[in-house]
Amino acid sequence: MNLPVGYRYAATYAGIRAVAKDDLALIVSAVPANAAAVFTQNRVQAAPVRLARQNIKSSRGRAGAILVNAGNANCATRTGDRVAQATCRAAAKLLRLKPNEVLPASTGVIGVELDPKLILGALPSLAAGLTSDAEGDGFVRVSRAIMTTDKVPKTASEEVKLRRGVMRIAGMTKGAGMIHPQMATTLGFVLTDANIPTAALRGMLLAGNEASYSRISVDGDTSTNDTLILLANGASGVRPDPKEMPLVAAAVTRVMQSLAIQIVRDGEGAEKLIIIEVRGAKNDAAAAAIARSIANSPLVKTAVAGSDPNWGRIICAAGYAGVPFDPTKVDIEMHGIPVCKSGLAAPLSEAELKKKLDQPDCPIAFTIRGSGKGKATFWTCDFTKGYIDINASYRT
Amino acid sequence: MNLPVGYRYAATYAGIRAVAKDDLALIVSAVPANAAAVFTQNRVQAAPVRLARQNIKSSRGRAGAILVNAGNANCATRTGDRVAQATCRAAAKLLRLKPNEVLPASTGVIGVELDPKLILGALPSLAAGLTSDAEGDGFVRVSRAIMTTDKVPKTASEEVKLRRGVMRIAGMTKGAGMIHPQMATTLGFVLTDANIPTAALRGMLLAGNEASYSRISVDGDTSTNDTLILLANGASGVRPDPKEMPLVAAAVTRVMQSLAIQIVRDGEGAEKLIIIEVRGAKNDAAAAAIARSIANSPLVKTAVAGSDPNWGRIICAAGYAGVPFDPTKVDIEMHGIPVCKSGLAAPLSEAELKKKLDQPDCPIAFTIRGSGKGKATFWTCDFTKGYIDINASYRT
Repeated sequence: MNLPVGYRYAATYAGIRAVAKDDLALIVSAVPANAAAVFTQNRVQAAPVRLARQNIKSSRGRAGAILVNAGNANCATRTGDRVAQATCRAAAKLLRLKPNEVLPASTGVIGVELDPKLILGALPSLAAGLTSDAEGDGFVRVSRAIMTTDKVPKTASEEVKLRRGVMRIAGMTKGAGMIHPQMATTLGFVLTDANIPTAALRGMLLAGNEASYSRISVDGDTSTNDTLILLANGASGVRPDPKEMPLVAAAVTRVMQSLAIQIVRDGEGAEKLIIIEVRGAKNDAAAAAIARSIANSPLVKTAVAGSDPNWGRIICAAGYAGVPFDPTKVDIEMHGIPVCKSGLAAPLSEAELKKKLDQPDCPIAFTIRGSGKGKATFWTCDFTKGYIDINASYRT
Repeated sequence: MNLPVGYRYAATYAGIRAVAKDDLALIVSAVPANAAAVFTQNRVQAAPVRLARQNIKSSRGRAGAILVNAGNANCATRTGDRVAQATCRAAAKLLRLKPNEVLPASTGVIGVELDPKLILGALPSLAAGLTSDAEGDGFVRVSRAIMTTDKVPKTASEEVKLRRGVMRIAGMTKGAGMIHPQMATTLGFVLTDANIPTAALRGMLLAGNEASYSRISVDGDTSTNDTLILLANGASGVRPDPKEMPLVAAAVTRVMQSLAIQIVRDGEGAEKLIIIEVRGAKNDAAAAAIARSIANSPLVKTAVAGSDPNWGRIICAAGYAGVPFDPTKVDIEMHGIPVCKSGLAAPLSEAELKKKLDQPDCPIAFTIRGSGKGKATFWTCDFTKGYIDINASYRT
């Protein structure tokens, strides 16, 4: 992985989680970077979400560092705002940044006070331990520090060759449960060393988010802490010219898609990735609504878990998406094999399909004929007993 | 159970389901009854839903019989409409009714052709075997014949003493999965021997449905076959006077609530009934939206399964209900014990609460202070591995 230049990373165990695993991390840019971010649409928002939004606004899209902890969401607590402010202020001082140039993010349990001393005490050595990619595996270590019920760390990167040189993009994300597409879902940090003006950066973030984090679902629960941050520090010296912007935006989107799909693949209890392609809806929004409804159906998700080609549940879930369509114009394929033609059962070799359904990826194509050109892709995972195991006793 | 007079019942095994268990049933009124019905809002609607809607319209709210089968939803099949029509026509002929006075209903797997010969062949002996309650247990047998993944039959009844005499109400319902509140959910048949004009009957059905079937959820999936029918045959000779109508409507609502709650209690894999009371929202619709969002959260439902007083998930689910509220004004109680005060953790004896959370009922009270008088009650069940067991291999 060729990481973008001009960023440093550090992670440590500050004692926030019960198990001795890194739970506090810093991502620092050599120079304040242009920054864009999207946050959860939940009415209940964690203190770090409120502060990060405020900071990015008051700094007019400039950020020098991301301070992130796992093990505690710093949400719905008495002291949440003060903890977020005090810890960001301390980090800013150590890093010689303005207080509003530090963006906080937290993930973990809701409603439990976060002791600021744990973070304040750990910060000096954390800052002293910052390393560039050239010096160590700081990036990967941070991607591990932000994990909660994740089984694996999630990173993605790309290099883009532009006329003036090479720019790099790298991202990390976390999340396995409480995953539902509402703007940003979970925590995601995407860094680039290109020089991209804040307005363009924001456009890239929104477009990328729409095609990635906004198109995934594990359990339909939208977190209180969702944060997706995109930083561009310009340290590569490469500034895309206007014509190259679509190329850069596409690469940013691909990195975000890779991260988002990794979340679904690691979905709590998930054994299979379900890729839902809707085609032929009235417009893209209608296609997305249908795809989302199929993706969120526990009955579709349990059928895929059981390798059951139960397309009736798929057309049923599409039917309550709130979007008009003619069921007799619907074709459904699973693994490229027609299971439903014109809204009716297609003749098929169930043994052959069943074997395919045991594979780890399950592509579902839902096509409405003669209705429109709207299309959408959505990623979700199957629903297994593992999800219940994880969530029946997460807190206690 | 004192059943309403003037109805007869029969059930038999017609070979629709694989296991030899009653799967075809008739409910017949001695005289054509006034009828009201609500149906699924799914865009994909089973043939019997379309025909029942059409019949109740063309007969101007008159019905003499309900013909119901389990084991096959008669939905998304080539011959669905013809099967529904032919079987209703045959039943009408046997019962000396007009074809549009028979209301069909089906439940079971979607997308598999329903062989009409099975029903046509069984109908004569089914009609010959009709018994009144006085003669046998026909009512209960029909309530068993309509079961699919249900573990227990579900019935409820009330007697109402009016000035002119006693009227009786009795209902049956089925459903354990694919349960989500959208008008009617699942199959429900409610019968009364009072003489109630069709317009008033329709009002009672809508009001009752709104406070019962529209307020339950098992898995958030809305079926293609949902049908709720209310018949009033007047056989008791009792006609409520206008002042007594609220009394009658309240009794109808209670019967529907009892039925709806039985569905949730028997929810696929369910071990606990969760009763969500929202108080103090801007209006009743806002309260219902919050209650629904909490009820549909897999994270809340798995926490209750694990007896985990994880109120953070409750306030989080409320937060994405799409209704504005101030989280710092929220109090949450579980089993009457405050777990969240003003959006923050309430001091509590977790051992004491944990013991209560092991009980089969889990009341959750969500109160917003100083916002309004909107309130709503919602019933759902916990989410256990049993749900996955049942649904990973329902069809195959």
